[in-house]
Amino acid sequence: MKAALVFALLATGVCWAQPPADCKPSSLNIPGAPYPCVFPDNRAMFRVVAPNAQAVKVRVGAGFDMTKQADGLWYATTTPLVAGFHYYMVNIDGGSFSDPATQTFFGSGQWSSAIEIPAPDADFYSHKDVPHGVVREQGYFSTVTQQWRRCFIYTPPGYDTDTKAKYPVLYLLHGWGENELGWTFQGHVDQIMDNLIAAGKAKPMLIVMDNLNAVKPGEDGTIYNARSAITQAVPQPPPPPGAAPARPAIRLSSTFTDMMFADLIPAVEKNYRVAPGRENRAMAGLSMGGMQTFTTGLQNLDKFAYLGGLSGNCMGFGGAAFDPKTSCSGAFADSAAFNKKVKVLFVSTGSVEGPRVKQFSDALTQAGINNVYFESPGTAHEWLSWRRAFADFAPRLFR
Amino acid sequence: MKAALVFALLATGVCWAQPPADCKPSSLNIPGAPYPCVFPDNRAMFRVVAPNAQAVKVRVGAGFDMTKQADGLWYATTTPLVAGFHYYMVNIDGGSFSDPATQTFFGSGQWSSAIEIPAPDADFYSHKDVPHGVVREQGYFSTVTQQWRRCFIYTPPGYDTDTKAKYPVLYLLHGWGENELGWTFQGHVDQIMDNLIAAGKAKPMLIVMDNLNAVKPGEDGTIYNARSAITQAVPQPPPPPGAAPARPAIRLSSTFTDMMFADLIPAVEKNYRVAPGRENRAMAGLSMGGMQTFTTGLQNLDKFAYLGGLSGNCMGFGGAAFDPKTSCSGAFADSAAFNKKVKVLFVSTGSVEGPRVKQFSDALTQAGINNVYFESPGTAHEWLSWRRAFADFAPRLFR
Repeated sequence: MKAALVFALLATGVCWAQPPADCKPSSLNIPGAPYPCVFPDNRAMFRVVAPNAQAVKVRVGAGFDMTKQADGLWYATTTPLVAGFHYYMVNIDGGSFSDPATQTFFGSGQWSSAIEIPAPDADFYSHKDVPHGVVREQGYFSTVTQQWRRCFIYTPPGYDTDTKAKYPVLYLLHGWGENELGWTFQGHVDQIMDNLIAAGKAKPMLIVMDNLNAVKPGEDGTIYNARSAITQAVPQPPPPPGAAPARPAIRLSSTFTDMMFADLIPAVEKNYRVAPGRENRAMAGLSMGGMQTFTTGLQNLDKFAYLGGLSGNCMGFGGAAFDPKTSCSGAFADSAAFNKKVKVLFVSTGSVEGPRVKQFSDALTQAGINNVYFESPGTAHEWLSWRRAFADFAPRLFR
Repeated sequence: MKAALVFALLATGVCWAQPPADCKPSSLNIPGAPYPCVFPDNRAMFRVVAPNAQAVKVRVGAGFDMTKQADGLWYATTTPLVAGFHYYMVNIDGGSFSDPATQTFFGSGQWSSAIEIPAPDADFYSHKDVPHGVVREQGYFSTVTQQWRRCFIYTPPGYDTDTKAKYPVLYLLHGWGENELGWTFQGHVDQIMDNLIAAGKAKPMLIVMDNLNAVKPGEDGTIYNARSAITQAVPQPPPPPGAAPARPAIRLSSTFTDMMFADLIPAVEKNYRVAPGRENRAMAGLSMGGMQTFTTGLQNLDKFAYLGGLSGNCMGFGGAAFDPKTSCSGAFADSAAFNKKVKVLFVSTGSVEGPRVKQFSDALTQAGINNVYFESPGTAHEWLSWRRAFADFAPRLFR
């Protein structure tokens, strides 16, 4: 019966009713789902069930129109995609939905589908036969936001058995539209650390992953929300099919900083065995989380000896030129004092994100500010850039 | 401008362009999303963006047709829903998708939307100002399945500070189409335990939540997958709009039992401070997880002193009458021996699931088998039944 059906489809030219043999299911698919699949040349093939729809598209970076085939389902094959993790959504007759064929990840302020294009260097973030740390969900009450919050905390192998050891702490932030799950679910930070520690390349440390979204009672928190008709009480016109979701202009408040010092750091230091002092405390983040890191960290160098901005720093998005005396609130005005305090200042970008981070690093160097620049080859403002940058950054910490 | 838009919509009679004041956003919505919302009488109002769709429905238990209003969006208001957590999906022109307005949860083998109808007794599973345990993600390698697996482990308040104490362990399983995240994300088991322990009602214990899906290399694992066109290599006709997804006939293999004894229990006992012996080990599960509990537990009473089946046990779905000599592979044939070994045998159901669990409990009692029967008033085969049952079961353990 199955053979007959396949034959009938083949006879009408629909030879992809079964996935092509060289199109391998994405590792992020739900169990058993053959689509989306990835060809050896990094083209991806999507399939969507919406038999009565008029128009179906898939948006994975660019938009691709899907075509309804004789089997009644919609198919599209993309051009070759860059390696790594990509969020994607499908557009059904003008509405944007996640694809039920994949696990969902919080990105762009909503739970989105994703596809993983295998990277040639995937080994460094793969689950290997090495001692493994543990990721813990930790709740705590914030006196600043007046709400219960949660963070996730990576504890390295041996944390539970060597019950006297104290550990340095990295506070690590996600980007706009993401949340405290991003660095483990999308970033594989736990596997990267397990592998680095097993190879003797990074010191065992705690990694605290919290949520950027911190607002005081009555404060406007819409900056953190998805910008779409979904979060509007009065609906706005939906974006054109295939368009990227609109992002709000990023403007950081001091609330996260206040919450971090008043609530988060005390909760971590109360519940975990933390080595004391600024030389055992680092802060980093990606994109908006890198901006928050520089906002919080540069004004509080008595509390941090290591800072990292992965595709995000204190230069905003406006393209302003760097002035060592005034940029970043003048934090770099005294290079000798800065270099004495900050053991590592790390900035990174994906090579296809453009030259701005490199220009910032060069300007810092020009101004006499020691800094480390890392560039992920061939990747964009996406998670493979940040996985690679983290793997370069973590070994530099707490030396 | 916004005021003018509202006025224009009001003038055309669309008075729900802003959510009605007494319709409160579901607690499971993404940040900022006003829909779905819940009225005081438990009707729910949904809104979907799909401007060019021909037909849109929402299926939350029953199916409800949505209507396109003058603002171009689709709306539906349900009849009153029962209290608690409900998975739901929206159907757009014949395709089934999660609603981008909510967090997604793994149910029916895919990441589904959900709505929470406030329960009058929600206090027992709410996050309160009591000492909190921690949920940890623990990886381990399975020699049986030849794959890395992960489980989540609740450790009670004090586990990290009282480093000599050893704890009893409850192995707790999800239902069909769910995964190892279900008991924390959908069930709030960590909050229920925190509250029970704080009230002195339950003993501190570890709770290990693993994934039922365990297959040996080459073994057929499709039992665990969503039954829809999404997981078919050769597409099947989609179900009629609004229809519930087809479920496979549940048949358990011995692989989970093998994996549990060979890999899971040793990994837990190696990495955590576990009190020894069968009197410190319990197993329970909901629905298919209850069936697995009885399958594994009744044949291994040397390893467990407590068993719980929440809306699932060893009687299958066929409606067979209970025979103490032969039912459940004869595990209840010798009631005196059984009662001596098993300190608590717990069975539960939601009152609207039908009488079969009550009949099973009565038949056990008739056959001289000690057992505890719990019934959740007014709830179905859903998470509020299981939250309530767990809160009744946990205090009975390890006494």
